Amino acid sequence: MANVRVIEIGESVFAENDSMAAANRKQMKDQGTLFVNVMSGPGSGKTTTLTAIINRMKNDYKIGEMDVDIESSVDAQRVADATGVEALQIHNMGLCHIDADMTARALAQYDTKDLDLLILENIGNLVCPAEFDVGAGKNLMLLSVPEGDDKPLKYPLMFTIADVVLINKIDTLEYFDFDKEAVVDRILKLNPNSKIFFISAKTGQGLDEVVEYLKDEIAKVKTGK
Amino acid sequence: MANVRVIEIGESVFAENDSMAAANRKQMKDQGTLFVNVMSGPGSGKTTTLTAIINRMKNDYKIGEMDVDIESSVDAQRVADATGVEALQIHNMGLCHIDADMTARALAQYDTKDLDLLILENIGNLVCPAEFDVGAGKNLMLLSVPEGDDKPLKYPLMFTIADVVLINKIDTLEYFDFDKEAVVDRILKLNPNSKIFFISAKTGQGLDEVVEYLKDEIAKVKTGK
Repeated sequence: MANVRVIEIGESVFAENDSMAAANRKQMKDQGTLFVNVMSGPGSGKTTTLTAIINRMKNDYKIGEMDVDIESSVDAQRVADATGVEALQIHNMGLCHIDADMTARALAQYDTKDLDLLILENIGNLVCPAEFDVGAGKNLMLLSVPEGDDKPLKYPLMFTIADVVLINKIDTLEYFDFDKEAVVDRILKLNPNSKIFFISAKTGQGLDEVVEYLKDEIAKVKTGK
Repeated sequence: MANVRVIEIGESVFAENDSMAAANRKQMKDQGTLFVNVMSGPGSGKTTTLTAIINRMKNDYKIGEMDVDIESSVDAQRVADATGVEALQIHNMGLCHIDADMTARALAQYDTKDLDLLILENIGNLVCPAEFDVGAGKNLMLLSVPEGDDKPLKYPLMFTIADVVLINKIDTLEYFDFDKEAVVDRILKLNPNSKIFFISAKTGQGLDEVVEYLKDEIAKVKTGK
Protein backbone atom coordinates (compact mmCIF):
# COMPACT_ATOMS: atom_id res chain seq x y z
CA MET A 1 0.00 0.00 0.00
CA ALA A 2 1.16 3.51 -0.76
CA ASN A 3 1.96 5.76 2.18
CA VAL A 4 -0.74 8.13 3.36
CA ARG A 5 -0.15 10.91 5.82
CA VAL A 6 -2.92 11.77 8.25
CA ILE A 7 -3.46 15.07 10.02
CA GLU A 8 -6.14 15.86 12.58
CA ILE A 9 -7.80 19.26 12.24
CA GLY A 10 -10.65 20.09 14.59
CA GLU A 11 -12.98 23.04 14.80
CA SER A 12 -11.62 26.31 13.61
CA VAL A 13 -10.55 29.09 15.94
CA PHE A 14 -10.81 31.54 13.06
CA ALA A 15 -14.26 33.06 12.81
CA GLU A 16 -13.86 35.11 9.67
CA ASN A 17 -14.31 32.31 7.22
CA ASP A 18 -14.83 34.47 4.16
CA SER A 19 -11.61 36.43 4.43
CA MET A 20 -9.62 33.26 5.06
CA ALA A 21 -11.33 31.64 2.08
CA ALA A 22 -10.36 34.62 -0.06
CA ALA A 23 -6.75 34.22 1.09
CA ASN A 24 -6.72 30.52 0.17
CA ARG A 25 -8.23 31.34 -3.21
CA LYS A 26 -5.66 34.07 -3.91
CA GLN A 27 -2.76 31.84 -2.87
CA MET A 28 -3.83 29.05 -5.23
CA LYS A 29 -4.55 31.43 -8.09
CA ASP A 30 -1.26 33.31 -7.68
CA GLN A 31 0.72 30.09 -7.84
CA GLY A 32 -1.23 28.85 -10.90
CA THR A 33 -3.04 25.98 -9.19
CA LEU A 34 -6.65 25.14 -10.00
CA PHE A 35 -8.14 24.33 -6.57
CA VAL A 36 -11.32 22.24 -6.76
CA ASN A 37 -13.56 21.52 -3.76
CA VAL A 38 -15.43 18.26 -4.37
CA MET A 39 -18.66 17.69 -2.45
CA SER A 40 -21.51 15.15 -2.41
CA GLY A 41 -23.60 12.96 -0.16
CA PRO A 42 -22.13 9.71 1.16
CA GLY A 43 -21.59 7.01 -1.42
CA SER A 44 -22.12 9.05 -4.57
CA GLY A 45 -18.74 7.96 -5.94
CA LYS A 46 -16.41 10.89 -5.20
CA THR A 47 -13.31 8.79 -4.61
CA THR A 48 -13.87 6.49 -7.60
CA THR A 49 -14.56 9.45 -9.88
CA LEU A 50 -11.54 11.43 -8.70
CA THR A 51 -9.30 8.40 -9.08
CA ALA A 52 -10.47 7.95 -12.67
CA ILE A 53 -9.99 11.65 -13.47
CA ILE A 54 -6.51 11.78 -11.90
CA ASN A 55 -5.41 8.72 -13.85
CA ARG A 56 -6.53 10.39 -17.10
CA MET A 57 -4.57 13.59 -16.30
CA LYS A 58 -1.56 12.63 -14.19
CA ASN A 59 0.90 12.17 -17.06
CA ASP A 60 0.37 15.75 -18.24
CA TYR A 61 -0.37 17.62 -15.02
CA LYS A 62 0.94 17.75 -11.45
CA ILE A 63 -1.99 16.82 -9.25
CA GLY A 64 -2.50 16.78 -5.48
CA GLU A 65 -5.40 15.52 -3.41
CA MET A 66 -6.53 16.15 0.15
CA ASP A 67 -9.34 13.97 1.56
CA VAL A 68 -11.52 14.98 4.49
CA ASP A 69 -13.13 12.37 6.71
CA ILE A 70 -14.15 12.16 10.34
CA GLU A 71 -11.64 9.59 11.48
CA SER A 72 -10.92 7.08 8.71
CA SER A 73 -8.19 7.20 6.06
CA VAL A 74 -10.00 4.97 3.57
CA ASP A 75 -10.33 7.61 0.84
CA ALA A 76 -6.79 9.00 0.76
CA GLN A 77 -5.44 5.46 0.80
CA ARG A 78 -7.67 4.47 -2.14
CA VAL A 79 -6.60 7.51 -4.17
CA ALA A 80 -2.93 7.02 -3.35
CA ASP A 81 -3.01 3.31 -4.17
CA ALA A 82 -4.92 3.77 -7.42
CA THR A 83 -3.13 6.82 -8.81
CA GLY A 84 0.30 7.09 -7.15
CA VAL A 85 -0.55 10.65 -6.09
CA GLU A 86 0.62 11.45 -2.58
CA ALA A 87 -2.78 12.07 -0.98
CA LEU A 88 -3.20 13.82 2.37
CA GLN A 89 -5.93 12.56 4.69
CA ILE A 90 -7.47 15.24 6.90
CA HIS A 91 -9.38 14.04 9.96
CA ASN A 92 -11.87 16.73 10.92
CA MET A 93 -12.61 15.20 14.33
CA GLY A 94 -16.35 14.70 14.09
CA LEU A 95 -17.37 17.82 12.20
CA CYS A 96 -19.65 17.69 9.17
CA HIS A 97 -17.58 20.18 7.19
CA ILE A 98 -14.14 21.73 6.68
CA ASP A 99 -13.87 25.50 6.81
CA ALA A 100 -11.40 27.94 5.24
CA ASP A 101 -9.07 28.05 8.23
CA MET A 102 -8.96 24.27 8.51
CA THR A 103 -8.21 24.20 4.79
CA ALA A 104 -5.41 26.74 5.26
CA ARG A 105 -3.92 24.58 8.01
CA ALA A 106 -4.02 21.59 5.67
CA LEU A 107 -2.46 23.62 2.83
CA ALA A 108 0.37 24.58 5.18
CA GLN A 109 1.21 20.89 5.58
CA TYR A 110 0.96 19.90 1.93
CA ASP A 111 3.37 20.98 -0.78
CA THR A 112 1.08 22.58 -3.35
CA LYS A 113 3.25 25.21 -5.01
CA ASP A 114 4.05 23.25 -8.19
CA LEU A 115 0.60 21.71 -8.54
CA ASP A 116 -1.54 22.34 -11.62
CA LEU A 117 -4.59 20.85 -9.94
CA LEU A 118 -5.36 20.49 -6.23
CA ILE A 119 -8.43 18.48 -5.29
CA LEU A 120 -10.09 18.72 -1.89
CA GLU A 121 -12.42 15.75 -1.39
CA ASN A 122 -14.83 17.12 1.19
CA ILE A 123 -16.78 15.02 3.68
CA GLY A 124 -19.82 13.14 2.36
CA ASN A 125 -22.63 15.52 3.26
CA LEU A 126 -25.05 17.67 1.25
CA VAL A 127 -25.71 20.23 4.00
CA CYS A 128 -22.71 21.52 5.97
CA PRO A 129 -19.95 21.73 3.32
CA ALA A 130 -22.18 24.03 1.23
CA GLU A 131 -22.15 26.55 4.08
CA PHE A 132 -18.36 26.96 4.31
CA ASP A 133 -16.38 28.56 1.50
CA VAL A 134 -12.99 26.86 1.64
CA GLY A 135 -11.46 29.17 -0.95
CA ALA A 136 -11.55 26.83 -3.91
CA GLY A 137 -11.45 28.18 -7.45
CA LYS A 138 -14.28 25.84 -8.38
CA ASN A 139 -16.91 24.01 -6.34
CA LEU A 140 -17.72 20.67 -7.92
CA MET A 141 -20.41 18.34 -6.63
CA LEU A 142 -21.55 14.84 -7.44
CA LEU A 143 -25.09 13.54 -7.41
CA SER A 144 -25.55 9.85 -8.19
CA VAL A 145 -28.54 8.39 -10.00
CA PRO A 146 -29.54 6.07 -7.10
CA GLU A 147 -29.89 9.10 -4.80
CA GLY A 148 -32.79 10.43 -6.89
CA ASP A 149 -33.65 13.42 -9.06
CA ASP A 150 -35.35 15.27 -6.16
CA LYS A 151 -32.10 16.19 -4.40
CA PRO A 152 -31.87 19.76 -5.79
CA LEU A 153 -35.26 20.40 -4.17
CA LYS A 154 -34.02 19.12 -0.82
CA TYR A 155 -30.46 20.50 -0.71
CA PRO A 156 -30.82 23.76 -2.64
CA LEU A 157 -27.79 25.57 -1.17
CA MET A 158 -25.39 22.84 -2.35
CA PHE A 159 -26.70 23.03 -5.91
CA THR A 160 -26.67 26.83 -5.79
CA ILE A 161 -22.99 27.11 -4.88
CA ALA A 162 -21.77 24.28 -7.15
CA ASP A 163 -20.07 25.52 -10.31
CA VAL A 164 -20.02 21.99 -11.71
CA VAL A 165 -22.40 19.06 -11.12
CA LEU A 166 -21.38 15.53 -12.10
CA ILE A 167 -24.34 13.19 -12.26
CA ASN A 168 -22.68 9.86 -11.60
CA LYS A 169 -23.67 6.18 -11.94
CA ILE A 170 -25.49 7.01 -15.18
CA ASP A 171 -24.90 3.36 -16.16
CA THR A 172 -27.56 2.39 -13.58
CA LEU A 173 -30.24 4.65 -15.06
CA GLU A 174 -32.44 1.76 -16.16
CA TYR A 175 -32.72 0.41 -12.61
CA PHE A 176 -33.80 3.64 -10.94
CA ASP A 177 -36.63 6.07 -11.44
CA PHE A 178 -34.51 9.12 -12.32
CA ASP A 179 -35.61 11.89 -14.68
CA LYS A 180 -32.57 13.44 -16.39
CA GLU A 181 -34.45 16.41 -17.79
CA ALA A 182 -36.15 17.15 -14.48
CA VAL A 183 -32.87 17.11 -12.57
CA VAL A 184 -31.22 19.45 -15.09
CA ASP A 185 -34.17 21.85 -14.85
CA ARG A 186 -34.02 21.79 -11.05
CA ILE A 187 -30.27 22.42 -10.98
CA LEU A 188 -30.35 25.27 -13.53
CA LYS A 189 -33.21 26.91 -11.65
CA LEU A 190 -30.91 27.12 -8.60
CA ASN A 191 -27.78 28.03 -10.57
CA PRO A 192 -28.23 28.97 -14.23
CA ASN A 193 -24.44 28.92 -14.76
CA SER A 194 -23.98 25.36 -13.52
CA LYS A 195 -22.01 23.03 -15.80
CA ILE A 196 -23.69 19.62 -15.73
CA PHE A 197 -22.03 16.40 -16.88
CA PHE A 198 -23.58 12.93 -16.92
CA ILE A 199 -20.90 10.40 -16.09
CA SER A 200 -20.17 6.87 -14.96
CA ALA A 201 -16.95 6.58 -12.99
CA LYS A 202 -17.33 2.81 -13.37
CA THR A 203 -17.58 2.64 -17.18
CA GLY A 204 -15.74 5.90 -17.92
CA GLN A 205 -18.71 7.42 -19.75
CA GLY A 206 -18.55 11.22 -19.80
CA LEU A 207 -15.19 11.49 -18.03
CA ASP A 208 -13.34 12.79 -21.10
CA GLU A 209 -15.64 15.80 -21.16
CA VAL A 210 -14.97 16.48 -17.46
CA VAL A 211 -11.23 16.20 -18.05
CA GLU A 212 -11.47 18.67 -20.96
CA TYR A 213 -13.34 21.08 -18.72
CA LEU A 214 -10.67 20.79 -16.01
CA LYS A 215 -7.87 21.30 -18.57
CA ASP A 216 -9.58 24.48 -19.80
CA GLU A 217 -9.93 25.74 -16.25
CA ILE A 218 -6.28 24.97 -15.48
CA ALA A 219 -5.29 26.92 -18.60
CA LYS A 220 -7.38 29.87 -17.41
CA VAL A 221 -5.67 29.85 -14.00
CA LYS A 222 -2.22 29.66 -15.66
CA THR A 223 -2.96 32.58 -17.97
CA GLY A 224 -4.62 34.59 -15.23
CA LYS A 225 -7.98 34.76 -17.01
CA MET B 1 -52.87 15.97 -2.94
CA ALA B 2 -53.31 15.31 0.76
CA ASN B 3 -52.82 18.24 3.13
CA VAL B 4 -49.45 18.64 4.75
CA ARG B 5 -48.78 21.03 7.59
CA VAL B 6 -45.39 22.71 7.72
CA ILE B 7 -43.68 24.13 10.80
CA GLU B 8 -40.38 25.96 10.89
CA ILE B 9 -38.09 25.08 13.77
CA GLY B 10 -34.65 26.68 13.87
CA GLU B 11 -31.70 26.21 16.18
CA SER B 12 -32.51 25.20 19.72
CA VAL B 13 -32.27 27.58 22.64
CA PHE B 14 -32.14 24.62 25.01
CA ALA B 15 -28.60 23.48 25.66
CA GLU B 16 -29.22 20.41 27.76
CA ASN B 17 -30.05 18.06 24.96
CA ASP B 18 -29.79 14.86 26.93
CA SER B 19 -32.31 15.77 29.62
CA MET B 20 -34.78 17.01 27.02
CA ALA B 21 -34.25 13.80 25.05
CA ALA B 22 -34.98 11.79 28.19
CA ALA B 23 -38.20 13.76 28.68
CA ASN B 24 -39.32 13.07 25.10
CA ARG B 25 -38.51 9.38 25.56
CA LYS B 26 -40.44 9.17 28.83
CA GLN B 27 -43.46 10.97 27.35
CA MET B 28 -43.67 8.57 24.41
CA LYS B 29 -43.10 5.49 26.57
CA ASP B 30 -45.67 6.55 29.18
CA GLN B 31 -48.33 7.02 26.53
CA GLY B 32 -47.51 3.67 24.89
CA THR B 33 -46.07 5.05 21.65
CA LEU B 34 -43.06 3.47 19.97
CA PHE B 35 -41.03 6.49 18.80
CA VAL B 36 -38.57 5.67 16.01
CA ASN B 37 -35.92 8.10 14.75
CA VAL B 38 -35.06 7.24 11.14
CA MET B 39 -31.70 8.39 9.79
CA SER B 40 -29.61 7.88 6.63
CA GLY B 41 -27.62 9.70 3.99
CA PRO B 42 -29.46 11.48 1.18
CA GLY B 43 -31.21 9.22 -1.28
CA SER B 44 -30.97 5.93 0.60
CA GLY B 45 -34.74 5.44 0.36
CA LYS B 46 -36.07 6.56 3.74
CA THR B 47 -39.35 7.95 2.45
CA THR B 48 -40.07 5.04 0.10
CA THR B 49 -39.26 2.52 2.82
CA LEU B 50 -41.35 4.27 5.47
CA THR B 51 -44.28 4.57 3.08
CA ALA B 52 -44.14 0.82 2.37
CA ILE B 53 -43.90 -0.02 6.10
CA ILE B 54 -46.77 2.31 7.05
CA ASN B 55 -49.00 0.81 4.36
CA ARG B 56 -48.32 -2.67 5.74
CA MET B 57 -49.22 -1.61 9.31
CA LYS B 58 -51.78 1.18 9.09
CA ASN B 59 -54.90 -1.01 9.25
CA ASP B 60 -53.84 -2.45 12.61
CA TYR B 61 -51.94 0.42 14.21
CA LYS B 62 -52.30 4.17 14.63
CA ILE B 63 -49.22 5.69 13.01
CA GLY B 64 -47.85 9.23 12.82
CA GLU B 65 -44.93 10.63 10.88
CA MET B 66 -42.87 13.80 11.19
CA ASP B 67 -40.41 14.62 8.38
CA VAL B 68 -37.42 16.91 8.81
CA ASP B 69 -36.01 18.83 5.86
CA ILE B 70 -34.23 22.12 5.38
CA GLU B 71 -36.93 23.94 3.47
CA SER B 72 -38.85 21.54 1.23
CA SER B 73 -42.02 19.60 2.04
CA VAL B 74 -41.43 16.85 -0.53
CA ASP B 75 -41.16 13.99 1.96
CA ALA B 76 -44.17 14.67 4.17
CA GLN B 77 -46.26 15.20 1.06
CA ARG B 78 -45.10 11.87 -0.41
CA VAL B 79 -45.86 10.00 2.81
CA ALA B 80 -49.25 11.68 3.22
CA ASP B 81 -50.24 11.03 -0.39
CA ALA B 82 -49.10 7.41 -0.39
CA THR B 83 -50.40 6.34 3.02
CA GLY B 84 -53.17 8.73 4.09
CA VAL B 85 -51.28 9.39 7.34
CA GLU B 86 -51.36 13.04 8.35
CA ALA B 87 -47.63 13.76 8.13
CA LEU B 88 -46.03 16.84 9.71
CA GLN B 89 -43.21 18.52 7.80
CA ILE B 90 -40.62 20.17 10.02
CA HIS B 91 -38.37 22.76 8.37
CA ASN B 92 -35.15 22.99 10.37
CA MET B 93 -34.03 26.21 8.67
CA GLY B 94 -30.67 25.14 7.29
CA LEU B 95 -29.42 22.91 10.09
CA CYS B 96 -28.02 19.44 9.46
CA HIS B 97 -29.86 17.87 12.39
CA ILE B 98 -32.85 18.10 14.71
CA ASP B 99 -32.18 18.10 18.44
CA ALA B 100 -34.31 17.03 21.41
CA ASP B 101 -35.78 20.47 22.07
CA MET B 102 -36.70 20.97 18.42
CA THR B 103 -38.31 17.52 18.57
CA ALA B 104 -40.23 18.50 21.70
CA ARG B 105 -41.49 21.63 19.94
CA ALA B 106 -42.67 19.46 17.02
CA LEU B 107 -44.32 16.97 19.40
CA ALA B 108 -46.21 19.87 20.99
CA GLN B 109 -47.76 20.64 17.60
CA TYR B 110 -48.65 17.08 16.61
CA ASP B 111 -51.29 14.95 18.26
CA THR B 112 -49.36 11.84 19.29
CA LYS B 113 -51.19 10.61 22.36
CA ASP B 114 -53.17 7.79 20.70
CA LEU B 115 -50.34 6.72 18.37
CA ASP B 116 -48.91 3.21 18.50
CA LEU B 117 -45.99 4.21 16.30
CA LEU B 118 -44.48 7.65 15.74
CA ILE B 119 -41.82 7.95 13.04
CA LEU B 120 -39.39 10.88 12.83
CA GLU B 121 -37.78 10.95 9.39
CA ASN B 122 -34.59 12.84 10.13
CA ILE B 123 -32.65 14.90 7.59
CA GLY B 124 -30.53 13.01 5.06
CA ASN B 125 -27.12 13.12 6.68
CA LEU B 126 -24.81 10.49 8.21
CA VAL B 127 -22.94 12.89 10.51
CA CYS B 128 -25.00 15.43 12.46
CA PRO B 129 -28.17 13.48 13.35
CA ALA B 130 -26.03 10.84 15.07
CA GLU B 131 -24.79 13.50 17.49
CA PHE B 132 -28.20 14.57 18.79
CA ASP B 133 -30.35 12.21 20.86
CA VAL B 134 -33.93 13.23 20.02
CA GLY B 135 -35.43 10.95 22.65
CA ALA B 136 -36.60 8.15 20.38
CA GLY B 137 -37.21 4.67 21.75
CA LYS B 138 -35.32 3.25 18.80
CA ASN B 139 -32.79 4.70 16.37
CA LEU B 140 -33.19 3.15 12.94
CA MET B 141 -30.89 3.88 10.05
CA LEU B 142 -30.83 3.01 6.37
CA LEU B 143 -27.80 2.28 4.26
CA SER B 144 -28.41 1.60 0.59
CA VAL B 145 -26.36 -0.80 -1.53
CA PRO B 146 -25.28 1.91 -4.05
CA GLU B 147 -23.69 3.91 -1.21
CA GLY B 148 -21.15 1.16 -0.60
CA ASP B 149 -20.15 -1.30 2.12
CA ASP B 150 -17.44 1.03 3.48
CA LYS B 151 -19.86 3.45 5.13
CA PRO B 152 -19.57 1.98 8.67
CA LEU B 153 -15.84 2.73 8.46
CA LYS B 154 -16.52 6.33 7.50
CA TYR B 155 -19.51 7.21 9.68
CA PRO B 156 -18.87 5.09 12.78
CA LEU B 157 -20.95 7.13 15.25
CA MET B 158 -24.12 6.68 13.19
CA PHE B 159 -23.69 2.90 13.08
CA THR B 160 -22.79 2.84 16.78
CA ILE B 161 -25.98 4.56 17.92
CA ALA B 162 -28.34 2.77 15.50
CA ASP B 163 -30.39 0.02 17.13
CA VAL B 164 -31.60 -1.14 13.71
CA VAL B 165 -29.91 -0.97 10.30
CA LEU B 166 -31.93 -1.51 7.13
CA ILE B 167 -29.72 -2.24 4.14
CA ASN B 168 -31.93 -1.04 1.30
CA LYS B 169 -31.94 -1.43 -2.50
CA ILE B 170 -30.78 -5.04 -2.11
CA ASP B 171 -32.44 -5.68 -5.50
CA THR B 172 -29.55 -3.75 -7.09
CA LEU B 173 -26.84 -5.91 -5.52
CA GLU B 174 -25.71 -7.34 -8.85
CA TYR B 175 -24.93 -3.89 -10.25
CA PHE B 176 -22.76 -2.68 -7.40
CA ASP B 177 -19.63 -3.93 -5.72
CA PHE B 178 -21.12 -4.45 -2.24
CA ASP B 179 -19.99 -7.14 0.20
CA LYS B 180 -22.89 -8.17 2.45
CA GLU B 181 -20.75 -10.12 4.89
CA ALA B 182 -18.19 -7.33 5.18
CA VAL B 183 -20.84 -4.71 5.91
CA VAL B 184 -22.44 -6.90 8.61
CA ASP B 185 -19.04 -7.46 10.22
CA ARG B 186 -18.30 -3.73 10.17
CA ILE B 187 -21.68 -2.83 11.68
CA LEU B 188 -21.53 -5.45 14.44
CA LYS B 189 -18.01 -4.38 15.34
CA LEU B 190 -19.39 -0.90 16.08
CA ASN B 191 -22.60 -2.13 17.73
CA PRO B 192 -22.82 -5.85 18.56
CA ASN B 193 -26.54 -5.47 19.43
CA SER B 194 -27.51 -3.98 16.07
CA LYS B 195 -30.46 -5.63 14.28
CA ILE B 196 -29.66 -5.78 10.58
CA PHE B 197 -32.25 -6.36 7.85
CA PHE B 198 -31.61 -6.58 4.11
CA ILE B 199 -34.54 -5.02 2.29
CA SER B 200 -35.79 -3.59 -0.97
CA ALA B 201 -38.42 -0.91 -0.50
CA LYS B 202 -39.04 -1.19 -4.24
CA THR B 203 -39.75 -4.93 -4.44
CA GLY B 204 -40.89 -5.39 -0.83
CA GLN B 205 -38.17 -7.92 -0.05
CA GLY B 206 -37.43 -8.13 3.67
CA LEU B 207 -40.11 -5.65 4.74
CA ASP B 208 -42.30 -8.26 6.47
CA GLU B 209 -39.43 -8.99 8.84
CA VAL B 210 -39.01 -5.28 9.62
CA VAL B 211 -42.75 -4.97 10.26
CA GLU B 212 -42.64 -7.98 12.62
CA TYR B 213 -39.77 -6.36 14.49
CA LEU B 214 -41.70 -3.09 14.84
CA LYS B 215 -44.84 -4.94 16.02
CA ASP B 216 -42.78 -6.70 18.70
CA GLU B 217 -41.30 -3.39 19.82
CA ILE B 218 -44.74 -1.75 19.92
CA ALA B 219 -45.96 -4.65 22.09
CA LYS B 220 -43.00 -4.13 24.44
CA VAL B 221 -43.82 -0.42 24.81
CA LYS B 222 -47.49 -1.22 25.47
CA THR B 223 -46.67 -3.79 28.15
CA GLY B 224 -43.98 -1.58 29.67
CA LYS B 225 -41.19 -4.09 29.03
